[in-house]
Amino acid sequence: MHIHLYEKEYPKPSKDYVRVEWTSLREFVSQCLQKLGVPKWDSDVVADVLVMADLMGIPSHGVQRLRRYVDGLRAGTINPIPNIRVEVEFGALAVIDGDRGLGQAVAIRGTEIAIEKASKFGISLVLIKNSNHFGIAGYYSLKIAENNMIGITISNSRPLVAYVNTIGRSIGSNPIAIAIPRKNPPPILFDAATSVVPIGKIELYAKIGKDVPCGWAIDALGRDLCGDAKKVLEEILRGGALLPLGGLFEITGGHKGSGLSLVIDIIAGVLSGASWGLHVGYSVGIKPANVGHAIAAIDISKITPLEVFLDRVERYINEIKNLPKHPKADRVWIPGEKAWLTMQTRKTIGIPIHREILKELQELGHELGVDAGIIKLM
Amino acid sequence: MHIHLYEKEYPKPSKDYVRVEWTSLREFVSQCLQKLGVPKWDSDVVADVLVMADLMGIPSHGVQRLRRYVDGLRAGTINPIPNIRVEVEFGALAVIDGDRGLGQAVAIRGTEIAIEKASKFGISLVLIKNSNHFGIAGYYSLKIAENNMIGITISNSRPLVAYVNTIGRSIGSNPIAIAIPRKNPPPILFDAATSVVPIGKIELYAKIGKDVPCGWAIDALGRDLCGDAKKVLEEILRGGALLPLGGLFEITGGHKGSGLSLVIDIIAGVLSGASWGLHVGYSVGIKPANVGHAIAAIDISKITPLEVFLDRVERYINEIKNLPKHPKADRVWIPGEKAWLTMQTRKTIGIPIHREILKELQELGHELGVDAGIIKLM
Repeated sequence: MHIHLYEKEYPKPSKDYVRVEWTSLREFVSQCLQKLGVPKWDSDVVADVLVMADLMGIPSHGVQRLRRYVDGLRAGTINPIPNIRVEVEFGALAVIDGDRGLGQAVAIRGTEIAIEKASKFGISLVLIKNSNHFGIAGYYSLKIAENNMIGITISNSRPLVAYVNTIGRSIGSNPIAIAIPRKNPPPILFDAATSVVPIGKIELYAKIGKDVPCGWAIDALGRDLCGDAKKVLEEILRGGALLPLGGLFEITGGHKGSGLSLVIDIIAGVLSGASWGLHVGYSVGIKPANVGHAIAAIDISKITPLEVFLDRVERYINEIKNLPKHPKADRVWIPGEKAWLTMQTRKTIGIPIHREILKELQELGHELGVDAGIIKLM
Repeated sequence: MHIHLYEKEYPKPSKDYVRVEWTSLREFVSQCLQKLGVPKWDSDVVADVLVMADLMGIPSHGVQRLRRYVDGLRAGTINPIPNIRVEVEFGALAVIDGDRGLGQAVAIRGTEIAIEKASKFGISLVLIKNSNHFGIAGYYSLKIAENNMIGITISNSRPLVAYVNTIGRSIGSNPIAIAIPRKNPPPILFDAATSVVPIGKIELYAKIGKDVPCGWAIDALGRDLCGDAKKVLEEILRGGALLPLGGLFEITGGHKGSGLSLVIDIIAGVLSGASWGLHVGYSVGIKPANVGHAIAAIDISKITPLEVFLDRVERYINEIKNLPKHPKADRVWIPGEKAWLTMQTRKTIGIPIHREILKELQELGHELGVDAGIIKLM
């Protein structure tokens, strides 16, 4: 079989990276969590979400976040054995209390309920409170799309972004992910943070020594932050902030990025009963993070025969693919297509892991008594 | 009573504008539509939506669009007496066939069904096909918010925007509007097109002789279009296009604007059974426009006591309002607040109507046998 190798971002310089086999990396992550008392099923889910981010070329949300989860579990901020329960149920709605569990373990249960309720009522909405960081929002929407439904996932997150026209960190980078099934993969996946970039991207740059471009963040006085990622990260935590999508001011559309972030927070945080804005905590803190999510599913077959919908989507995609390309563009892409192709490539040739991140994982393994040697290099 | 007069956009130069009393303008618009066979109730709704846009400082979606609707009714593209019916009903879902009616008359019926179903199932989704341009999306979301529910409205629209990395018009400026009730007005209203600007803004600039800045549109070869609005409008219709939110390329986030536009179209257009992308028609054309909308409602009281939610929202808003303002910013705004204050001001001192637009209305009145003298100048 001929496989066209494509990666959204190529590891550069390549000598700084090793390629690792993805299932072995996932197994390592799961074993680390299990050592901290997280049940195997939950550990496997968290590991799957983190490694899928690396597979998809979103390393900011990949295994580089494991250290944070481990610290949160050790600090007691994250509950390894949560009693996840449905607190409110009304028709097509449910509210889940995540009992401070790992966000992925909580959100995947919410996803299952959303699917079940959508098949009964056509559309469903599951609100989740008392959760933690849940990785890539697209993961849950894609699970819903696997069931031939449209999946919509939103979440709030700790305040790292400046609200339009203000300085300091006040709102989260609150993402929205919408997945739509197709006849054949890749499904359509629109997955976007409402900040210019997520903090994980700057954390990653700091770990691997890459410079931050201007337009991503400001310091405590509202001045542009660029250059050395470690310094940018320090300045952000010292009163600075990430910028909302569209930038800090209205002239460049900052009201659209921070406005969308606000309404996402009001649904995922205020309505769910979770924290919001300034009050959302960190995985490692003295108080529970109390992150909120919202997951909705729409059962296509209750509206129109599935085949009719899928055929219409294919016709639409073909029309987009055949549009005249701008002379300065390389290719016309469908949302989620790059991430999907990157995943196929990396399942074949391995995930590029920066040597600094691999070292961090090895240290974690050493601390927890998990043999990092199980991570297969390719 | 002291009224603080605020307007989002001040009419400049003021000598080119007259102020008109809003209810008399609304009455005039309604009478024009009635002359074309549109029932009074429907005419009143359309007039209310158009005039509300002018009140809110969104003249691109205001009475300047009346000419287009009149032409569409005369051409037979728009059906004055549609048989609006529920085609599919399943649990919390409904699909409505708008029978080529005026978008506002169709969408307001969808809004009522969304409210009714949300009170039964907690959340609802109404899909609408065979409709036409429905004015500001925020109108329907605000109606839902008046019922203490969260309202979400999306729509597709005729292809005027270039998809990321391509040239030519292929997707709509597909808006999303989310309204959230508050203890006291203004409600929160996030209402954004997925293009940099809607076409109505350039139409308006052309009518009043204002220049178009760069970054809004491209010509048939993908080059920036700026300057004389009449020429820009011609170039757009001659193979050019509006730009998606985030610009034409990925580096500036064009994939976010056009990606969101695409998923909105797949729900409002593909799933509803309406047209999509290249196929969505114009109010005046040889084929029905077949515009699609989707309206969702979430009944807050089914999740948490309404007072608890409203209190939490007030606390959040107060926190945002008290954030340290950036030294270069004038004020910290909540989404929808500017539009709301503008509406209060204009209900008091009148809507500024450009003399060219007033002339157009007078001509329309003359053609239809409606006395434009009923529009009260202030």
